[in-house]
Formats: sequence, structure tokens, C-alpha cells
Amino acid sequence: MNYDFTTVINRRHTDSVKWNVKDSELPMSIADMDFKTAPEIVLAMHEKLELGAFGDEEAGADYFNAVSHWYQLEHGAKAEPNWMIFATGVVPAISSIVRRVSHIGDNVLVQEPVYNIFYNSIENNGRHVLSNELIYSNGKYEINWQDLEERLANPLTALMIFCNPHNPTGIVWRKSEVERIASLCQENNVILLSDESHGDLVRNNVKYTPAFSVAKTLRSNVISLVSPSKTFNVATLHAATVIIPDNNLHDIINRGLNSDELAEPNLLAIPATIAAYTEGFNWLHELLAVIDNNFAYVEKKITSQLENVKIVSGPATYLMWLDVSKITHDSYRLAAYLRKETGLIVSAGSIYRGNGNEFLRINLASPKSMVEDGISRLITGIEKYSKK
Amino acid sequence: MNYDFTTVINRRHTDSVKWNVKDSELPMSIADMDFKTAPEIVLAMHEKLELGAFGDEEAGADYFNAVSHWYQLEHGAKAEPNWMIFATGVVPAISSIVRRVSHIGDNVLVQEPVYNIFYNSIENNGRHVLSNELIYSNGKYEINWQDLEERLANPLTALMIFCNPHNPTGIVWRKSEVERIASLCQENNVILLSDESHGDLVRNNVKYTPAFSVAKTLRSNVISLVSPSKTFNVATLHAATVIIPDNNLHDIINRGLNSDELAEPNLLAIPATIAAYTEGFNWLHELLAVIDNNFAYVEKKITSQLENVKIVSGPATYLMWLDVSKITHDSYRLAAYLRKETGLIVSAGSIYRGNGNEFLRINLASPKSMVEDGISRLITGIEKYSKK
Repeated sequence: MNYDFTTVINRRHTDSVKWNVKDSELPMSIADMDFKTAPEIVLAMHEKLELGAFGDEEAGADYFNAVSHWYQLEHGAKAEPNWMIFATGVVPAISSIVRRVSHIGDNVLVQEPVYNIFYNSIENNGRHVLSNELIYSNGKYEINWQDLEERLANPLTALMIFCNPHNPTGIVWRKSEVERIASLCQENNVILLSDESHGDLVRNNVKYTPAFSVAKTLRSNVISLVSPSKTFNVATLHAATVIIPDNNLHDIINRGLNSDELAEPNLLAIPATIAAYTEGFNWLHELLAVIDNNFAYVEKKITSQLENVKIVSGPATYLMWLDVSKITHDSYRLAAYLRKETGLIVSAGSIYRGNGNEFLRINLASPKSMVEDGISRLITGIEKYSKK
Repeated sequence: MNYDFTTVINRRHTDSVKWNVKDSELPMSIADMDFKTAPEIVLAMHEKLELGAFGDEEAGADYFNAVSHWYQLEHGAKAEPNWMIFATGVVPAISSIVRRVSHIGDNVLVQEPVYNIFYNSIENNGRHVLSNELIYSNGKYEINWQDLEERLANPLTALMIFCNPHNPTGIVWRKSEVERIASLCQENNVILLSDESHGDLVRNNVKYTPAFSVAKTLRSNVISLVSPSKTFNVATLHAATVIIPDNNLHDIINRGLNSDELAEPNLLAIPATIAAYTEGFNWLHELLAVIDNNFAYVEKKITSQLENVKIVSGPATYLMWLDVSKITHDSYRLAAYLRKETGLIVSAGSIYRGNGNEFLRINLASPKSMVEDGISRLITGIEKYSKK
């Protein structure tokens, strides 16, 4: 290891949302890692500060080439710089795109259980959530294709928000699946918005399929959203890239992002993204090994000590998805109990809807010592809850 | 002088929008200063980078207290921390408020000639610009009160965007004027949105009146927008504060900013704003002396060498407003000529509408050597244009 993934950073009593908890509590909920970002990125930030005069900026060729470079080298996928638009974040871009390609009262399709913030972007803008719920059987999630086809064919469905890879289940969709979805969206004139926030965070040598990389004929209504945010623990860098192969759709989304005031980079966004995408490879690969190790550790602990809990996670994200259906059908209550009894904060699966009421999501992107503490609390809490 | 206002910073061939010009050109248009920001701010930024882990943040008491502290000490005005909302910028907040307090097809009132970006926020959101044009006579601008009353009484008028102090004319409105406007807005159920971006940049010991500081009975529909952006040359810090004394209006605007994804601070926004508002006093006062000096220099040059040009600026902003009506009625053409012939880039007054077609706006917030170069180009260009 060349990088430090063991030091515990103290963010208690800072402005951190994740760490805005009691001193006795341990937050393993919000998808925010407890590792410092790559030092190459911090160095680029320090260097930018030397400029001193911080007037308006625009992302140029160096920025878009860096994004393209990363997708080529890390994912073997070709994204043309002229397909790209800078945005101040993945979630802001989702909200803007919801507003731009659908109307009030339209349906936006998602696959529950899914990243809960999608619901805010849809419902806060007066659109309806339409769910193609994932089928769960034998500890595995699958797409219900027939249901998907029917819902996409609904004339009120304007947009599908696709979680690729999938949060909270960790599923990495196969290329054939991504292309089948793109094809169904195209047939039904539904825009396919692919949130690829966790695309870099795939373990076990699996690779995800960016939506922009589907077969050329299927790209006409595809939008990929990418960002160093999750990958490098820089959510407050407020930098994301919208990748849209189709010219006309590109211009439509670009107008929306600009009208919505979500298209201008802050003073760190450009240099830090360039550093991430040109110098971040080694840091990321070490991070993935650390996360893998944490997953293995937790798997061992849970398998040996919590026989009623089942790990369902796929190889993507640093978030473990735990089936607690043998213990409760109300994961919100279980999560509240764990917090109260042990101080461990995990996400109640119910916020992701679908069958999430029988699941917990736990963030394993922390130094080993913190993961050990968390799992020990989890085991204590669940044992105590089960005995009630 | 304890701070450096003489070094010329080279931002050519960076991502700067202002400096994205030919090597032979000199931009004195966009309101972006050519001084490094206060070193106290840069230090706070460097310190924040040491944290290393950049997950989501929320502005807390320390942030809002710092804003309050600044307005108390610098402006003698009391803003309660619980009146405040963090926003990612003044212009983003304007666009969001336009959407939240008016409907498509409504009128938004402005006082032309005025900051051109107001028109984008209004028109990109499908609202109409209604102008209470300032009266210009004897080299002075005044409010046309009768016209203002009539336009506010128009039932389609939902919002007034008040430029306080006024850009591009540099007018600092008297307290009695601000209160009269607040009172008229209140009578007509029009929200008064006061853009106070240039409030700190007032010379000659004049003080501006924040809208939130009007008489208590007049505060029910008043919104002030403040930011260190112009004051400290940190536009890309993406940090502003919305100040709304009325509880209900505060909550309405807060929902809008959140839905619009304009309410979350980036990793530098909080510490840099706190540094600006607690340690920036001396830097600002030195800056104002430097700008004052630049104004005096340019006034002398223009008065002695360009008898057909009249300086109309009030004591606010670092932007000089030049009446060129004796030379042209098409300031766009004159500005284009100046750029082509001398490389000097100034803003054509026509973009501010109203009588701006007979004015130029020139940014004097640059080291003296740059101002000298700019004024020399201006004199050469205007003399040449006049002889055509």
C-alpha cells in the first residue's frame, strides 16, 4: 500500500452531515467514505489556491479530455469530449434533467429498491415515481423484464432513472442488460438517464457498462452521469459530467443545466477533477482492495455470528446490503433500535422502497478499526433485538 | 498598505471566463477583479484542504454568525442568523426565487438600465421583464416613483428585483428610498428581492441600506441576497446568503433552493466565507482606497482628454459608467470598435437595456498599471472613433 487507508479522520463537530451525531455514535449510513481523498487531488487543490483571483470559470478541453481519458483507461469505454457537459453534481443534474425532459404529472421510472434521492428529484418536481420493482428470490435481485416493458410503454412515462451500477444492492448490470434497457427506452421514446456514480467502485475485476457505450444505434436517448464524487470521496467538490452522445439531446440538457444554474464550476472543480481522472488510478485500485478486504471481514463475522442475516451485495459500491427479513419486516425500526442501543447508525432499507423494509444498508468505506467497531455494535444490537 | 494590490496576476490561458481573450486584448468588462483575494481567505481554504475527506456538509451556526457579525460591524445592520439560508450564489438564488414566488407569464419588475443577468433569470424561466426605467437627466439617475407605483400595482407583477446598490450606475439608494420601495411592494403584495452583491463595495464613507434592515413593519416580503463574491473576488467560491426576516417567506424560499439543488455548500464555501466575514475588514478597506484611487485617476484622464465622455458613476461598485451619448447611440458598436482597434474590452451599456445604448461600463478593479493601459487604449480608441 502506498496510500493511507488506516488513519481515522476526526470529523466530529465539523460541518460534515455524516458526522453530525452524538459523540458515542458511529455513522455507517450516508455514502461518504472515512478515508482522505487521493493526495494527488489535494495537491492540485492547493496549487489552484495560489492563483488567488477566483472569478468565473468554464470547463475547457483539458477537463473534458481528462474525463475521456479516465473512461478509456479505467473502463475501456470511449466518450467523446463533445458529448460532455459540466454539472455541479450528479443529483443536481438528475433534478435538472427530470425538469427538462418530462412534464409535471409525468411518470419517471425507477427500479426499487433504489437510491432514495431519486425520489426527491422526481417528487419535488411534481412528477410521479413509477417502479419496475426488482424481483428478489434466492438472495438475488433480477430485472422483471415484462413489467419493465409494460411500464416503459405507458404513454405517461417520459424518463427512466437507471442506477448503474445499482445502489443499494451493488449489482453490476451486464452489458446485454444495459443494451436491452437502452433498446426498450428507445422503442418507447423514453429518455434513459443512467446514474453511474458508483461505476468506478466495482470490485473483483468486474467492469460496469457506461450507458454511453451501448451500441451506436441505441445511443439516441441515453444520458450517463459520472463524477469523482463517490470514487474519491469528494461529494463537496460539486463536480460531475453529463455524457450525451446525441447532439440534440445534449443541447436540450445543456440549456436546462444553464437555466437551472447548475452548469458553472467552482474554483476547485476543474483542477481536482483533472487530477482525479489523470492521476487517481493507483489510489482507486488500492481503495478497492481495502474495501474488498472490509467486505471479506464483515462477511466472515456475519456468517459466523449472525445466522439470521444474509449478505446480498453484488460487487459494486462500498455499501453492504443486508437481508434482515428473518428478524424484522420493519427495517426502519431495527435501524432506530441499533442506533439507540449501540450508537451504530446504518441506513434503514425502507428508505429505498421496494422490499427495502427487510434490509439494512451499511457503509464499509472506513478504516478497518472503524469497521470492526461497527460490526461489533451490529452484532450486539441484532442479538439483543432478536432476544426481545 | 498591508496587502498587495499592485501585482498583475496572469490568468491568460487558464479557465477564467474574463481572460479567455486574445493575447493582445485587455478585458475590463466582466465584474471580476484582477486582485488576489484576501490572504486570510486563502489561508482558511488551505487549512480546510487538510481535512482530506470531503463528504456532504451543512452550514451551521458558525457560518450564520459570521454573516451576522459582518453586517453588524461593517454596515451597522442587524441580521438574525435564523433569517439566513445558504445558497450557491447570488444569481442561482435569484433564478430559484423567480421560480418560487412567481409563475410563468408573470411580470418581474426591474429598474433599467440594470445588471443584465437579471434578464436571464427572468426570461429563461418564462417570466416577463417589466421595467421601471430610471430617469436620466443632468448626468444623474433618479427613480420614477409614479411609474414604479403603477407597475407594482399591475396584478401580473409578482416580484421586483432591486439592485441595491445599483449596477451599472453605482447608485447607493438612500434609506428613505429603500423603505419607500419596501412599502410600495408590501402594499401591492410584490416580493422585494434585493441583490446586495455590491453592498460592501461602496466608497467615500457612504453606507448602503440592506433591505432586511428596513423598518420592522416593512419586512414582511423583503429578501436580501449577500455574498463575499464581488467583495473578495471569489465568484467561484459559489457562496451566498439569502436573508429573509419573515418566517413563512423564509421557508418557502428554502424549499425552492433545496428542490433546485442550490442549497448545499462546496468544501470551501463555509470556511472561506467565515474567514472573509470575520477577518476581511482590513483587506476590504484597503481595496476600497485602491479603487477610489483608480476612479480619481480615470476621472482626471477622461475629464482632461475625452471631453465628449461624461462619468456618471455613484460611489458603489468598481464599475465606472460612462455616458458616451455625444459619440454614439449604439454603445454595442462602439465597444466592438474599441475591442477591434485597441484590444480593450469594455461592456456595451446596451446589454443593461434602458438608456444603456449611450453608455459604456468599465471595470476599474485592477492594478494601477493595468488601469493605465486600459485608459490609454480607451482614449486612443474613442479619439479614433470620433474622427471617423
